[in-house]
Amino acid sequence: MDKILVILTFIGSLCALLFAILTAKKVISFPEGTDKMKKISHSIKKGANAYLKRQYIVVSVFFAVMFVILFAMAMLDLLTIFVPFAFVTGGFFSALSGFIGMKIATASNARTANACREGLNKGLRIAFSAGSVMGFTVVGLGLLDISIWFFLLNNVFKLNPTEITSAMLTFGMGASSMALFARVGGGIFTKAADVGADLVGKVEAGIPEDDPRNPAVIADNVGDNVGDVAGMGADLYESYVGSVISASALGVTAFSTNSRINNLNAMAVPILLAALGIFCSILGTFLVRTKENATQKNLLKSLSRGTNFSAIVIALTAFPVVYFCLDGMNSIGLYCAILSGLIAGVLIGQSTEYFTSDTYKPTKHLASKSETGSATIIIGGLGLGMLSTVLPIIIVAVCILIAYFASGGMNDTNLGLYGISLSAVGMLSTLGITLATDAYGPVADNAGGIAEMSGLDPEVRQRTDALDSLGNTTAATGKGFAIGSAALTALALMASYVNKVGEVAAAKGIKVDLTFDITNPTVLVGLFIGACLPFVFAALTMESVGKAAQSIVVEVRRQFREITGLMEGKADPDYTSCVDLCTKASLKEMVLPTIVAIVTPIVTGLILGYHGVVGMLAGATASGFLLAIFMSNSGGAWDNAKKYIESGAHDGKGSDQHKAAVVGDTVGDPFKDTAGPAINILIKLLSMVSIVFAGLIVSYSIF
Amino acid sequence: MDKILVILTFIGSLCALLFAILTAKKVISFPEGTDKMKKISHSIKKGANAYLKRQYIVVSVFFAVMFVILFAMAMLDLLTIFVPFAFVTGGFFSALSGFIGMKIATASNARTANACREGLNKGLRIAFSAGSVMGFTVVGLGLLDISIWFFLLNNVFKLNPTEITSAMLTFGMGASSMALFARVGGGIFTKAADVGADLVGKVEAGIPEDDPRNPAVIADNVGDNVGDVAGMGADLYESYVGSVISASALGVTAFSTNSRINNLNAMAVPILLAALGIFCSILGTFLVRTKENATQKNLLKSLSRGTNFSAIVIALTAFPVVYFCLDGMNSIGLYCAILSGLIAGVLIGQSTEYFTSDTYKPTKHLASKSETGSATIIIGGLGLGMLSTVLPIIIVAVCILIAYFASGGMNDTNLGLYGISLSAVGMLSTLGITLATDAYGPVADNAGGIAEMSGLDPEVRQRTDALDSLGNTTAATGKGFAIGSAALTALALMASYVNKVGEVAAAKGIKVDLTFDITNPTVLVGLFIGACLPFVFAALTMESVGKAAQSIVVEVRRQFREITGLMEGKADPDYTSCVDLCTKASLKEMVLPTIVAIVTPIVTGLILGYHGVVGMLAGATASGFLLAIFMSNSGGAWDNAKKYIESGAHDGKGSDQHKAAVVGDTVGDPFKDTAGPAINILIKLLSMVSIVFAGLIVSYSIF
Repeated sequence: MDKILVILTFIGSLCALLFAILTAKKVISFPEGTDKMKKISHSIKKGANAYLKRQYIVVSVFFAVMFVILFAMAMLDLLTIFVPFAFVTGGFFSALSGFIGMKIATASNARTANACREGLNKGLRIAFSAGSVMGFTVVGLGLLDISIWFFLLNNVFKLNPTEITSAMLTFGMGASSMALFARVGGGIFTKAADVGADLVGKVEAGIPEDDPRNPAVIADNVGDNVGDVAGMGADLYESYVGSVISASALGVTAFSTNSRINNLNAMAVPILLAALGIFCSILGTFLVRTKENATQKNLLKSLSRGTNFSAIVIALTAFPVVYFCLDGMNSIGLYCAILSGLIAGVLIGQSTEYFTSDTYKPTKHLASKSETGSATIIIGGLGLGMLSTVLPIIIVAVCILIAYFASGGMNDTNLGLYGISLSAVGMLSTLGITLATDAYGPVADNAGGIAEMSGLDPEVRQRTDALDSLGNTTAATGKGFAIGSAALTALALMASYVNKVGEVAAAKGIKVDLTFDITNPTVLVGLFIGACLPFVFAALTMESVGKAAQSIVVEVRRQFREITGLMEGKADPDYTSCVDLCTKASLKEMVLPTIVAIVTPIVTGLILGYHGVVGMLAGATASGFLLAIFMSNSGGAWDNAKKYIESGAHDGKGSDQHKAAVVGDTVGDPFKDTAGPAINILIKLLSMVSIVFAGLIVSYSIF
Repeated sequence: MDKILVILTFIGSLCALLFAILTAKKVISFPEGTDKMKKISHSIKKGANAYLKRQYIVVSVFFAVMFVILFAMAMLDLLTIFVPFAFVTGGFFSALSGFIGMKIATASNARTANACREGLNKGLRIAFSAGSVMGFTVVGLGLLDISIWFFLLNNVFKLNPTEITSAMLTFGMGASSMALFARVGGGIFTKAADVGADLVGKVEAGIPEDDPRNPAVIADNVGDNVGDVAGMGADLYESYVGSVISASALGVTAFSTNSRINNLNAMAVPILLAALGIFCSILGTFLVRTKENATQKNLLKSLSRGTNFSAIVIALTAFPVVYFCLDGMNSIGLYCAILSGLIAGVLIGQSTEYFTSDTYKPTKHLASKSETGSATIIIGGLGLGMLSTVLPIIIVAVCILIAYFASGGMNDTNLGLYGISLSAVGMLSTLGITLATDAYGPVADNAGGIAEMSGLDPEVRQRTDALDSLGNTTAATGKGFAIGSAALTALALMASYVNKVGEVAAAKGIKVDLTFDITNPTVLVGLFIGACLPFVFAALTMESVGKAAQSIVVEVRRQFREITGLMEGKADPDYTSCVDLCTKASLKEMVLPTIVAIVTPIVTGLILGYHGVVGMLAGATASGFLLAIFMSNSGGAWDNAKKYIESGAHDGKGSDQHKAAVVGDTVGDPFKDTAGPAINILIKLLSMVSIVFAGLIVSYSIF
């Protein structure tokens, strides 16, 4: 079994990477357009590279310090020796995913704009291809790393399955840490630039978005790449790997006492599902094309055709995998769990779309609140976001219950938890293509910026706008998968933590009580503290965006004031100063939230013990899930309400209603693109840190 | 013991009520000022009475329906026969508390304004006296009802202690239901009027606050009375009674198997503490006075002197009560629990003050964000509110741990839970005086409105403003007590629910599993659903405020447009139409949230069973506590940032910065005065409903 597993996953990951390389080559073969377009694209590329380079330096220091700490702990026998190495590799590959995604995105923005000069379909193909490169790089690298590590630990070092999954969870912790840096840093960069550019450019100076006279416009476009592309790449790499290895870990536990099935087989199920998902996703991408003069509906249909096809194929082919691996045992139940995750992901995405798309009532109704000013549209958006948490909560609740009880949780808790973790894998199995539809958004956004700045025909901008606006909808769906899978993975990791505590205690001969009664005050206090963490985290990141944006506002105002001829288009603004400001601010601000995320579970554990940690994880997952949905949906709805008004409703662009909607959109920016997505990573990172340091907590806690 | 208890509490409650009557008489003896003042005060009184009358009609229908349902269930032997009667009485007295508070508040607004013509000290005395009437009415009625019910159940019907506390918890459910109606309805009224008046008056027409030309100005002042006074009165009656009876219930359980101590004695401790608190509070009120030309600092000092003195006296005298009742058993530990609650309340209040008062950095820093427009001040305020949850969470966490472990929870869970519930009683023991300092705010606010509208000397308005601004600070402290005690009481009620499930199951011969492991999927799903409820609740109430405010905006705009000579002050606006609109809107909108609060625990229970209910209660308490603090503090900080700018900072009144701050304040209005406080009631009502319907759930749930 183990050899087949390694070979199959290796082939799967190579296919994904090969597909990514071929697609990238195809994208690069298209022309970049006029000299002006090349120049602008080059500036964006330069800014993004400079940012990433400096980000990686800061992150390297962090990883070096953590490596030393983990290595020292391994020397003291508090951890296994694989931990420090796995941690660093996880971080490295997560960063690499983001880096490659950003490379291809910055290489295709001008090409997309140029293709849009010829027609919509061509533009869509290039932007979507760029997104595919990113999508398949993420899943390919993820699977490659899992298979290499598995090969090393299983075949070279001959560890037992429990030790293997334990080391691989550390790998996940490395990936999550890196993802958090990338999401938070990139998120602060992009939103500081965006908010700063809008506040002075749109609101004060009254010039349109992406106007080349705005000194922050390049920074804004750089931000799309380092935040929405590099940040998202690292983030989803972490989600993907996290869901697979947490399911593997629970599979090992669930079948550890089974005489018939080797627990290596249970471990293989999520890995093989992931490999299978890659093939399904590749098939799906071939269905994404559209007619010329397609409406937005056609465009969306075209993308949906691809993702739906992939989902259906995986739904049909997952059963044999489960059946084959587990020799028919519980296969139908576990298959139901996978299916419920897959369906839950789609439903959460649809709920997000309903609440944030301007084709439905909520966002239209929100736009109408602009009639009475910015205060009412803000109140309305906050209310909308809060209310939009209900459906996802119910969907996830039903998914958890189905996954648990169908898998046989009634008789064997471990089987039920394995089912929950498999539902997360099911949700993310077609990540290759869902991420492609998601990542293409920022490319189209950049293309629009380049079209505007290089003075292309308004028709071109209209086409990029059509692509971009669609990108908002697919981003909403993508967020559904990201948030839903984060919650399920976090629960799976919580279960892994409980198992880990049991193992560690058994190894050390310490007696532990593995019931976590919610009326036990340490569990309860942990729950309160955990529930508070996402709030703190959101506050810190929003505050950082606010701070960085204020410095941009001051700088843009200064340039408008001091550079003569700027407003008349006779002089060029100093773009690099804004890029620099954003870079410095975001790098400075990304450190504290990440440290909070790593230190809190350790401190909580040392004070409250492992009971407190489990409470904390449950609290953080519940409140993080809610807060992430609330913030993402409020932000999405404000964004689209603004776009709806810009399309002519409520007196259209330039009216007082539009100004009110711009305020809403500006508030929504850090909500949906900084704080919201970072919370997804936070809740998993908390669990992984807890798992890695479980030995410490069991031995040395106060309570 | 039981006779002493009845007599002592009866005396305590009579003292409180007598003190309230004497104080009310004193207030009434002061003159109401000029004819114009009388006329305005009369309009406010009329509007408030009309609103309350119609509110009580709607609420009566609800209570009648509930009475029939509960009575039918009692006939079917699903509940005891006392339940429907206790439910209705709880609702009645809660409403009465609000009603009396509102009566005295509307009687003293003109008197306060008139007294401010003579001097600040006199104004303070009258406003504070009015607040005291409300404070002592609430605690007096609360204790009276508890003692009457106790007498009936214990001495007349000869029930055993478990049955007594069970019936009394239903009494709490009635009070909570009424409180929720009053808070939500009043909260929607006051904020719809406030937001509507500000949006058109201040922002569009550029006329000052409380300008008599604004058609919504009377509605705004009526709102202060029906929301901040009547709503708060009903709310705190519920908190007070809830904390006492939940502690009594846990006391009965904790000592039910003790051979030395009759569990009636344990039940008596919280009731006697409440009675003792009344005497301490009365003593404290005599210390509230200030010098003429006092600064705001002096004023605050004067109020703090009163509350601190009361707190110190109760801290010193609580020990003998505990010692005497429990014959020395665990006395020191339980006393520590009470003390920790008392101190936690003060600390949460101070944390609230730090985050929301413009004498400290956070609010000053928030005000500075007005420099870059309304979007940045909104982002800043949301971040501030979220960050401000950390300290209260830590304070409550430490309080829970101390209360639990000091009381002996390590060896006996029930004792520990009793300790937690006593800490809530400790926190609320001096409610008489803390509520007085809180309720005087709206009276001063109204006095300011009357001073403005009747064209009194600007000096008078300055004095009322000084009082009003101080009211914001004391309101912050009051909120600390309300939120903190709500969380602790909710936890105590959760424990009561667990006990109740055990009792019901034992009586019916059903086997139940009373461990609520957080990794059990029904508990976990319950947790998710519970955590979502405060979000839904906040969304519904904010949406209601938005809707009602929009109708006011339309009406005010219409009057400005259609009534000729209005802006020149030559014609009177039609005040009553605005009052009517607010009344209708708020009564319509208050029903849905209340029904959600009552139906959800029953439906959750029927589907997920009692395990799901316990998860739901824990989730709702954690997320509700966080959301309530977040929303209250964001709102308070925006309000005071605006006041800070009005006092001259950042270019002062009328500047762009001020306009940005007004947007913040407007968003904050429903945050801090509608959604935030209602969540406190919600989390307790959920538990009480669960307790009352426990029998149904145990017998008929799916899981």
